[in-house]
Amino acid sequence: MRVGWIGTGVMGAPMCGHVLEAGYSVSVHTRTRAKAKSLESQGAAWCDTPRSVAAQSDVVFTIVGYPVDVEAVVLGADGVLAGMRPGGMLVDMTTSEPSLAMRMASRAADKDIAALDAPVSGGDRGAREGTLTIMVGGPEDAFDRALPLLHCFGKPVRRMGEAGAGQHTKMSNQILIASTMIGVVESLMYAMRAGLDLDRVIDVIGSGAAASWSINHLGRRIIRADYDPGFFIKHFVKDMGIALAEAGRMRLALPGLALAQQFYIAAMAEGLEGLGTQGLYRVYERMNGLAVD
Amino acid sequence: MRVGWIGTGVMGAPMCGHVLEAGYSVSVHTRTRAKAKSLESQGAAWCDTPRSVAAQSDVVFTIVGYPVDVEAVVLGADGVLAGMRPGGMLVDMTTSEPSLAMRMASRAADKDIAALDAPVSGGDRGAREGTLTIMVGGPEDAFDRALPLLHCFGKPVRRMGEAGAGQHTKMSNQILIASTMIGVVESLMYAMRAGLDLDRVIDVIGSGAAASWSINHLGRRIIRADYDPGFFIKHFVKDMGIALAEAGRMRLALPGLALAQQFYIAAMAEGLEGLGTQGLYRVYERMNGLAVD
Repeated sequence: MRVGWIGTGVMGAPMCGHVLEAGYSVSVHTRTRAKAKSLESQGAAWCDTPRSVAAQSDVVFTIVGYPVDVEAVVLGADGVLAGMRPGGMLVDMTTSEPSLAMRMASRAADKDIAALDAPVSGGDRGAREGTLTIMVGGPEDAFDRALPLLHCFGKPVRRMGEAGAGQHTKMSNQILIASTMIGVVESLMYAMRAGLDLDRVIDVIGSGAAASWSINHLGRRIIRADYDPGFFIKHFVKDMGIALAEAGRMRLALPGLALAQQFYIAAMAEGLEGLGTQGLYRVYERMNGLAVD
Repeated sequence: MRVGWIGTGVMGAPMCGHVLEAGYSVSVHTRTRAKAKSLESQGAAWCDTPRSVAAQSDVVFTIVGYPVDVEAVVLGADGVLAGMRPGGMLVDMTTSEPSLAMRMASRAADKDIAALDAPVSGGDRGAREGTLTIMVGGPEDAFDRALPLLHCFGKPVRRMGEAGAGQHTKMSNQILIASTMIGVVESLMYAMRAGLDLDRVIDVIGSGAAASWSINHLGRRIIRADYDPGFFIKHFVKDMGIALAEAGRMRLALPGLALAQQFYIAAMAEGLEGLGTQGLYRVYERMNGLAVD
């Protein structure tokens, strides 16, 4: 099976590296060729366009930035579908629009190409360690064919339903994180203002009914004023925008998500887009009269 | 050490039962005597007022409904402080106002009485099993004296600081839960509307960065339309009201908490006050055009 790979950023590069390590023959393309150099030195063959990647691959993985990038890379004149032969498979791992995933699957099916939407969670660390959670939408037989490849970097890999179901599951994940982060920041802000020892507070509230991964991991980082990503605020803002747009399309009101998105937009306005999601705490500090600069 | 106990509701009764089982002599009072019957049959001595409980006790525990009840039972003409001898100790375990806890501690100190605020989390189940988390504010020597009694029903028992620190910690806990529940309900509502299998969604998002006790326990209950408490919506509304008032007093804006409180008030408006906190899902169902009745 010949593998194509498009997108070699902080996630894509280590994921593609795992595929090479597993012994697959890989063709690669990315916007900035320098970011593919280490993969080339591991044996990946450079291609100048997504179309030429697809022309010499049985399955093509894409993991790029925004839905508009996915659309260009997959549906554009020099895109994957323009170059891929019937019987091939497209696996988009970008966190992107469920409705775009469905549109791509439909366009792919017209050419007898299978398409999976397969966004991941677990961050750059999960990508490096090959332990990403992968949420897959698309036909069962295509899922079964892709599984050995997905297992190169993912565990668990779960099929969630037909086209779009992977993206929808990822949106559910981000919606859950959004308000959980509001809770983390507000509870620590309250505890700080009340004069409590914040580590002791997390010791107590971080087990039991208030417990979450976010309070126990990102909450501890907030206490140390460690705002390194983790997961970038700018990417989270993208994801929340997609979730709100999809929810609006489904006529679904999600006021908590909308509130969280507004605060993260405020973080962007303050130039905090490069911080991890726990950087939300700094927005709350400023809002509450605690200048930090 | 002679123990007094005031308040024998769903929490107080089993907690006091553990104290009796440990062999302490207990005097008891509660608003509705019938609710103390089983404790009387275990050997507790009935008293007609909090004052008379205090008159024959070295330490008095109170766990009643609202801050106004705490104030009446502790500071009223027939209250604990009116009856207690110097050297005694008051332990209020009601989830109540931090500022009231500080006021009671000050009034108690005037009479050479030690006061602890010691709210709990862990629910009626934790009370029955003696595994409540107890968050304590007050002087260290009083904490040390109270510890053997608190261990009758609590584990872990943590001192969080001076008077009010126990209540403040409990507020941090409730603030964290409030927005986390918004996240749980919104992510499941989205997943449902997207046509996903909700149990499979929780399997995936309930581990990893979106994980919380709430999604894994209350989320599963929502899927089964199981809205039994757990923790009553009406009590949660009380707690959020206290937290918002205290935050306002500290000039601290907590918009996520305010939003959650509004939705839980909507739940009260719909007559859902007797459901568990996961009943928030029903408010979202109605808001989104999904009639359930």
